[in-house]
Amino acid sequence: MVLRLGHRAARDKRISTHCALVARALGAETLIYTGQRDSEMEASVRKLSAQWGGKFRIEHAASWRKALKDFKGGKIHLTMYGLPVQQKISEIRKQKNLLIIIGGEKVPMEVYHAVDWNVSVTSQPHSEVAALAIFLYEFFGGKTPDFGKAERRIIPQKAGKRFA
Amino acid sequence: MVLRLGHRAARDKRISTHCALVARALGAETLIYTGQRDSEMEASVRKLSAQWGGKFRIEHAASWRKALKDFKGGKIHLTMYGLPVQQKISEIRKQKNLLIIIGGEKVPMEVYHAVDWNVSVTSQPHSEVAALAIFLYEFFGGKTPDFGKAERRIIPQKAGKRFA
Repeated sequence: MVLRLGHRAARDKRISTHCALVARALGAETLIYTGQRDSEMEASVRKLSAQWGGKFRIEHAASWRKALKDFKGGKIHLTMYGLPVQQKISEIRKQKNLLIIIGGEKVPMEVYHAVDWNVSVTSQPHSEVAALAIFLYEFFGGKTPDFGKAERRIIPQKAGKRFA
Repeated sequence: MVLRLGHRAARDKRISTHCALVARALGAETLIYTGQRDSEMEASVRKLSAQWGGKFRIEHAASWRKALKDFKGGKIHLTMYGLPVQQKISEIRKQKNLLIIIGGEKVPMEVYHAVDWNVSVTSQPHSEVAALAIFLYEFFGGKTPDFGKAERRIIPQKAGKRFA
């Protein structure tokens, strides 16, 4: 499960949508987000998910504190200040149930202390979309989910576009 | 070198900025973008790069066709319609000089036929930021660059934030 903090409907719509689609495509089953409720974003993610398959869920949560507290399993915060993902990933892989927290602009210091791991994907500033993608890719050992016989399904091509 | 197609200053500022920062953090040396010239985005990427180290460059190009034609080396287009990255990466790794093309909303079919590889990071819709990140991560075998003694430098922590 992915927890996206502090969504602002005007400013973050595309970045949060990318986070949701990355979560889905790379193998997470749910994205919960806090901040402003954004029905438009939820609808677009649900529509895509219905067309492309799988059981991905997106939900708004009023309180990250409660979401964090209620979650049973390993809690990871992705932050450039944390320990390198390569150092921690084998330890983290032992967890069956995982909450992966990705921040907006300012993450409260409380989050750093409420999780089991603060993990960095490079110690450089870049993108929560990229950090989430690489984390999930590492976590699943490069395996990406099969979405089965969905309404929309691509047959990989050397050049051009082909749908099943 | 990364080539980002079709930047629209109003709509894409954050996504393109994330692409640039991911390119830098994961080991590319240059991002060229086409579409609208965006001095504000360029300035913010250059400022960050000056503070955090390295020699990353961001430049606007008037024509993607010319940029593609002028480039000497292997040309890769990241697209969900392409062949799986895992299948092609060892072949691609033999290239010393690489142009990685990431699209905006609509990529002209001409691009698919002008490159050496159309490569997908999952055959699902998600994010050019994530596709670029995972591609570079795979290409460099999980190694990320060292930016040396820059003005800003993080010392990884179990919890909290620490600068060198």
